[in-house]
Amino acid sequence: MTTKKGSDNGSLDYRFISTDDHIIEPSDVWKDRLEARYRDAAPHLVEENQTEYWQFEDQRVPNSGLSVMAGKRFEDYSPKAVRYADMRPGCYDPQARLADMDADGIEAEVCFPTVPGMAGTLFANAKDQALALRCLQAYNDWLADTWCATDRRRLIGQVIVPLWDVQRAAAELERGVRLGLKALSFPNAPETLGLPGLADPHWDPLWDAVEAAGVPVSLHIASGALRGSLPLDPGAGAPAEVFITVAPTTNFTVIATLLFSGVLEKHPRLRFLSVEGGIGWLPYLIQRADETFHKHRHWTNPRISQPPSVYFRRQIFANFLDDPVGVDCRHRIGIDNLMFETDYPHSDTTFPRSREVAARVFHNVAADEARKMLRDNAIRFFGLEAQA
Amino acid sequence: MTTKKGSDNGSLDYRFISTDDHIIEPSDVWKDRLEARYRDAAPHLVEENQTEYWQFEDQRVPNSGLSVMAGKRFEDYSPKAVRYADMRPGCYDPQARLADMDADGIEAEVCFPTVPGMAGTLFANAKDQALALRCLQAYNDWLADTWCATDRRRLIGQVIVPLWDVQRAAAELERGVRLGLKALSFPNAPETLGLPGLADPHWDPLWDAVEAAGVPVSLHIASGALRGSLPLDPGAGAPAEVFITVAPTTNFTVIATLLFSGVLEKHPRLRFLSVEGGIGWLPYLIQRADETFHKHRHWTNPRISQPPSVYFRRQIFANFLDDPVGVDCRHRIGIDNLMFETDYPHSDTTFPRSREVAARVFHNVAADEARKMLRDNAIRFFGLEAQA
Repeated sequence: MTTKKGSDNGSLDYRFISTDDHIIEPSDVWKDRLEARYRDAAPHLVEENQTEYWQFEDQRVPNSGLSVMAGKRFEDYSPKAVRYADMRPGCYDPQARLADMDADGIEAEVCFPTVPGMAGTLFANAKDQALALRCLQAYNDWLADTWCATDRRRLIGQVIVPLWDVQRAAAELERGVRLGLKALSFPNAPETLGLPGLADPHWDPLWDAVEAAGVPVSLHIASGALRGSLPLDPGAGAPAEVFITVAPTTNFTVIATLLFSGVLEKHPRLRFLSVEGGIGWLPYLIQRADETFHKHRHWTNPRISQPPSVYFRRQIFANFLDDPVGVDCRHRIGIDNLMFETDYPHSDTTFPRSREVAARVFHNVAADEARKMLRDNAIRFFGLEAQA
Repeated sequence: MTTKKGSDNGSLDYRFISTDDHIIEPSDVWKDRLEARYRDAAPHLVEENQTEYWQFEDQRVPNSGLSVMAGKRFEDYSPKAVRYADMRPGCYDPQARLADMDADGIEAEVCFPTVPGMAGTLFANAKDQALALRCLQAYNDWLADTWCATDRRRLIGQVIVPLWDVQRAAAELERGVRLGLKALSFPNAPETLGLPGLADPHWDPLWDAVEAAGVPVSLHIASGALRGSLPLDPGAGAPAEVFITVAPTTNFTVIATLLFSGVLEKHPRLRFLSVEGGIGWLPYLIQRADETFHKHRHWTNPRISQPPSVYFRRQIFANFLDDPVGVDCRHRIGIDNLMFETDYPHSDTTFPRSREVAARVFHNVAADEARKMLRDNAIRFFGLEAQA
């Protein structure tokens, strides 16, 4: 650790990497990509009462206002559905996205899908699995050959896989990586979709494929079934602010499950990124997990041989935006395990003030540590080609 | 703040106050206290296949091994049900409890019920409400005239109330305080019992009575319906350690709900204690709640007029055992809001090494700050008569 501080703004004189951003897919993603018999059934935009929805089988999803707030003043925040014509073009147009990244000092960003669900969960409970598989493959194709192809070094895509068939999931992961996608986006709480949980050996063939491909796995908060993985209704009559406040720490249970599952011991090269969970609560989790292992391992018949913190340092990573509490206790978590994100264009986004936020949050952080969290860790984690 | 450190063990030369301990009720609590027609129906001990259970209506609860681990080595920890004959007498005998407190350097302790549920929830869903009310009142009587009466300054009791009738609850709170009980023990997640949540104005008459009585409210983790308030099954096949690791932070949602509920603004003298939740995650919660208020208050129609942290500092308190992460960030929470606990005789207990744990956890803490957390804050919060 050097003594040079990030508070000297000159030390943040490089572009950042953001490890969590969102594509609001344009309406033509599935157009002209499917066999004739599937063309009408693929996800498509419909309009009813001046509201646009994406329709797939009997599932209908509007574009929530809180998902497209980039550039808005807080005074104008609203959950009301937004039409494409009223969105900032950077939401759905990759060229406009690159311009917004330039304006915000972001060199590259790791993108999550929206219409398919952040981890492809729209297709997980489809009635027609053959249709669902084709739609999912078409999405990975579009992501690679259209969105990311706009600038392969700056727009980083992640594979979604057919969660209902672990062998096909492994095959699609391999195919997606060959297309140039850089990670797997997997649901943080698969059990909320009626699928085996993260601790279940069911997923071993997929983890084997991920290890072999050498890519990491992103676990975004709220990427399982929404009602099951988030306390949308934490108490009768609970205010909306409770849901927003609580959402990041829903990854607490997710990480605790991974640490004790044995998955990290069985797959020592598997790496998971907790996405949009923040980091200020991680030191408590690591401490509590080790204490639990120390006190209770004599009766629990543990699936791990070393304290949970050993697996955490080696295989669990986490990202954050404006989290001074977390940055303060970074050494308790591990400087090499932490990465910045801008969450464009969701309501939590730091755009267009990401540099200003970073200058404040990293005010008392040594320059070499700040650079790791703002840039270098993400380049290594996702295997990116860095430019500057 | 002085510069004298707690690491000078001489500075911890006072007895501690513990703000979370548990009574494992002896078998005669309800004997001879009820009208003849209720006598057989009150909670009573039954035995089947060498296991003892408490029976009330059709609910049957064994004494879990993990609830009576005080004094055991970790190697002997087990969730297997334990018979009274095999328990440490301090679990159920107040004289033996006082002797264990002496051995552990504890001047006074705040006790929670076990058989009635930590917040009286056993009676909340009773079929016969008249029976349930009499059993609950008999419990408060026993607590005051038998358990606490053994040493009123050292064994501190808390009122449980009939949760199914808010007016009767207010009346029983007042009666319990007149009996000498020092707080209300209320479920941390009443909605899991089918009752209105903490944010609901339904509870206003009870909060009015609590404010008038000048006593605080304890919200113990897992004091709602067990399956609803704790992720016992956080993922298909999740290991038992996950439940133990996650349990304390289930109060995250509870505190977030209180902060945004408007209850603290409407009842400015109401004080809540988060019990056995630990404190290492509180700085993140306070930061996240304020950020949520700042960004989203223009559309959420908030029930509060000031940032959540203002209500936190004034009305939310929290206790902890072996939590160095939390003690490190104590100034972000508030030195006056924190209290020690020993959790006797549960598996998390620091007994009989509470002084050794405190010497380690408070190693780098100024002596006056350590004394507040180990003793003075609890005396003021519960209105205790301090001795030494």
